[in-house]
Amino acid sequence: MPDHEHGGAAQPWRARMHELIFEADTPSGRIFDLAILVAIGLSVLAVCLESVRSVREAYGAELRVLEWGLTIAFTVEYVARLIAVKRPWMYARSFYGVVDLLAILPTYLSLFVVGTQSLLVVRALRLLRIFRILKLTHYVGEARMLKAALAASSRKITVFLGAVLTCVLIAGALMYLIEGEEHGFTSIPRSIYWAIVTMTTVGYGDIAPQTVVGQFVASVVMILGYGVIAVPTGIVTVAMNDAFKKSTNTQACPACGASSHADDANYCKYCGEKL
Amino acid sequence: MPDHEHGGAAQPWRARMHELIFEADTPSGRIFDLAILVAIGLSVLAVCLESVRSVREAYGAELRVLEWGLTIAFTVEYVARLIAVKRPWMYARSFYGVVDLLAILPTYLSLFVVGTQSLLVVRALRLLRIFRILKLTHYVGEARMLKAALAASSRKITVFLGAVLTCVLIAGALMYLIEGEEHGFTSIPRSIYWAIVTMTTVGYGDIAPQTVVGQFVASVVMILGYGVIAVPTGIVTVAMNDAFKKSTNTQACPACGASSHADDANYCKYCGEKL
Amino acid sequence: MPDHEHGGAAQPWRARMHELIFEADTPSGRIFDLAILVAIGLSVLAVCLESVRSVREAYGAELRVLEWGLTIAFTVEYVARLIAVKRPWMYARSFYGVVDLLAILPTYLSLFVVGTQSLLVVRALRLLRIFRILKLTHYVGEARMLKAALAASSRKITVFLGAVLTCVLIAGALMYLIEGEEHGFTSIPRSIYWAIVTMTTVGYGDIAPQTVVGQFVASVVMILGYGVIAVPTGIVTVAMNDAFKKSTNTQACPACGASSHADDANYCKYCGEKL
Amino acid sequence: MPDHEHGGAAQPWRARMHELIFEADTPSGRIFDLAILVAIGLSVLAVCLESVRSVREAYGAELRVLEWGLTIAFTVEYVARLIAVKRPWMYARSFYGVVDLLAILPTYLSLFVVGTQSLLVVRALRLLRIFRILKLTHYVGEARMLKAALAASSRKITVFLGAVLTCVLIAGALMYLIEGEEHGFTSIPRSIYWAIVTMTTVGYGDIAPQTVVGQFVASVVMILGYGVIAVPTGIVTVAMNDAFKKSTNTQACPACGASSHADDANYCKYCGEKL
Repeated sequence: MPDHEHGGAAQPWRARMHELIFEADTPSGRIFDLAILVAIGLSVLAVCLESVRSVREAYGAELRVLEWGLTIAFTVEYVARLIAVKRPWMYARSFYGVVDLLAILPTYLSLFVVGTQSLLVVRALRLLRIFRILKLTHYVGEARMLKAALAASSRKITVFLGAVLTCVLIAGALMYLIEGEEHGFTSIPRSIYWAIVTMTTVGYGDIAPQTVVGQFVASVVMILGYGVIAVPTGIVTVAMNDAFKKSTNTQACPACGASSHADDANYCKYCGEKL
Repeated sequence: MPDHEHGGAAQPWRARMHELIFEADTPSGRIFDLAILVAIGLSVLAVCLESVRSVREAYGAELRVLEWGLTIAFTVEYVARLIAVKRPWMYARSFYGVVDLLAILPTYLSLFVVGTQSLLVVRALRLLRIFRILKLTHYVGEARMLKAALAASSRKITVFLGAVLTCVLIAGALMYLIEGEEHGFTSIPRSIYWAIVTMTTVGYGDIAPQTVVGQFVASVVMILGYGVIAVPTGIVTVAMNDAFKKSTNTQACPACGASSHADDANYCKYCGEKL
Repeated sequence: MPDHEHGGAAQPWRARMHELIFEADTPSGRIFDLAILVAIGLSVLAVCLESVRSVREAYGAELRVLEWGLTIAFTVEYVARLIAVKRPWMYARSFYGVVDLLAILPTYLSLFVVGTQSLLVVRALRLLRIFRILKLTHYVGEARMLKAALAASSRKITVFLGAVLTCVLIAGALMYLIEGEEHGFTSIPRSIYWAIVTMTTVGYGDIAPQTVVGQFVASVVMILGYGVIAVPTGIVTVAMNDAFKKSTNTQACPACGASSHADDANYCKYCGEKL
Repeated sequence: MPDHEHGGAAQPWRARMHELIFEADTPSGRIFDLAILVAIGLSVLAVCLESVRSVREAYGAELRVLEWGLTIAFTVEYVARLIAVKRPWMYARSFYGVVDLLAILPTYLSLFVVGTQSLLVVRALRLLRIFRILKLTHYVGEARMLKAALAASSRKITVFLGAVLTCVLIAGALMYLIEGEEHGFTSIPRSIYWAIVTMTTVGYGDIAPQTVVGQFVASVVMILGYGVIAVPTGIVTVAMNDAFKKSTNTQACPACGASSHADDANYCKYCGEKL
């Protein structure tokens, strides 16, 4: 958040506007954020409902009005955000800046192109703002910890994913050879789709092996997929353990040098020396 | 349990009644609890069997009699519980108080409304009382530990669930656009249902992508769902590790009385006294 | 293993027979065990193949001969085992004693009752003997560790399973009410079967919710089942961590009292004192 | 990699050739590896696309030309690798040597035998070379750690897999008896296939139990499969925790040179020297 970017003295109205729109720790700022969140939720709901034929036929006009009202409100909000920050271009290119733009574009586009209406669900992404409101609680800290743990294990996860994708590729090609087009494995890409469905233990059943050899290969893929989930789980668990532990005490005893003391320790647990 | 609420001297009959109904550590109290549990199990079984057409046609009358007998017994028990405690209103609003009421209401309601009979399975909730009987064993301690671990990780789980639900929302809308109504994705809510079925690796196969692009998006959702399960598992495992470790050492310092010492502690970490 | 039960001097033939049949650490004992294992594997394969119609029609007679030959061999082995131990009754009631008997009974029963042939797959249980052969390696130690970890967490697993089964019961009854017989939820037991299929993320798709409310409840059950797997995983992981760690060093430093030294440590890692 | 095998002075051209082909830490070596990787990716894509009927009919000729071009390039590369190393036979028998040969054989075989074309996906295995390019980063270290963790837990995984396969065998035979041929369980091998599909929570739904008893047994198998995944996850997590911890402290004792000290060690655990 570009807190430090606005010279409060020069343009006090912009500072206040910035506080209202971007901060969540003043009462008015929090009310503003809550109003935006409710509007987002309403708009996501409207898009979902409009896609249901019976609802569209009964309340189509009302939903269109609501849609346009919300889009105009979001447009005003977007422009206000651009004005409130000192470097609008930086905001416009930030993650939330792009999402805010994407959240209003489809409605305007729908004037020219048919079907873009459904793209409005991108607005759901804006719901991530909810964590901003909760800023004062510990939620953001939790999210940061989770992110740190995932970042620490991303290299191992990449190695794992590379191995899994190679397996899926080979299994898919094998099944194409074994089962052939007459059993639904009409091409290698489709067989690879089947291998992913099977290895992730989703198992739709829209394509299933019919031959004995095919069922044997499928069994191997299943057991592999079933057991191999242990690998990312292990990686993430260990990374989390480390990420969450990082905040523990690293104090060493002056007498015996032992570390790994509890956070609330006053005396060394091994030799009784004052810490 | 409102153990301290009954003045034993003033109303000894109520104290004894309370002991019989609410305690499980006297022989008669345990027999009472066991009898209730058997009655609950019987009643749940009866509701299940009555829903099977062939059983209902053959033994409908007998099951109705059993049903009414058990309902009257449970009503008597509920009234007795209200009498036995000093503050009936507090009991009536407690979790088990509400469950006890819900367990008898449907039968009486079925005199007026058709179909409420099946609501009787709420009685299954009363089976949770089983852990009360096992109070003297370690089971309640185990449940408390599990609850503590889940409570400690609830904030991280909330963050995780928020991210997953956003993914599901966006994946659902995307698939509605890609596959369209002719392939079963008849509305965004239905597509979201598909996305949940897929991401949780359930995979009924009642709705499945038909187009190449749809199968590609589905593959991404599957791999995401398959890998992302590692996150809550990691969170809960780390929380459990902490929760279980906390209760390991119950040694108290002879000087200052502080507990929660590490397993390998020789000296009190608070006052330096030898343990 | 009743090693101490046979007086070697009195009946040397029984001691040698016992060594041959029950021990796996002499060359002849290992050959005997290997022969038995091959025979078991062959017999399981024969039962499986006989159940395939085309194989049965082509090689039915040969398979029957093989079956009877193996059964007679196993009968001889069973009697030999009874003779070789000092307390035959104790062996007969032990786990492997019962399995050994069950492994020969079905063939004899098939003379009188049709269809019991397939029960012969119980012989697969005898394959567990494979771990006996590997006795000299570390496999048995690994199995003991796994068993210890599972035993340590059995109480927590019981609490967890109780909660899951209550959920499944209630979800099943709810879906019976919501979807009704016309959508395949013909009775509460069948709905409970659906709830188990869904909660364990198996998802056959033979029964699937059709109504919007039903799909919403199903989504909740799926997300619950998907997330809740983290609980037993966490329990088992923590228990394993403890069980595997148990074998580490519990030596404390004579100077500063610090423990948690590595197995191969000669000096205290904190103060440098000789251990 | 046989770095030490070539006498640089005697045959400088071979040394340079070796550096170009086998090393990835000179600019030219990295460009060579990248070119190979692009060629492999292209070739895998071509095989996949050729299996799609519509693509094959439209671009069959072009794909054949590309196929032959790449095969000739890979053949040249294979021969160059054989020449560049001092002991060609050792390379030819190594994992990558075999994969490199398998990657070119199918195209030549397709001149004589129809259908071997699809075997070309073995080329995907060559994509594993990608980790060689990343040699300078930490990826290989990560892969080694993962391999070490899996190797450390392989014995426990074997015990676990043995138990699971025994369960699957018995469950399959039971279902064959219970459901019989009229419900799709036409033979024990097919029932075992069903048991694997169910226990791994894949659940295609192509075979599903119809009888009440069958659905009960299936429920038990599902709950078993659902809960039992905790076991390998626990095993791998604990092993990873150990494997990752081992590599943390790389400090060597100045007196005796011993490494593998704990993170909080102040003194060498072998000789007592200050670290």
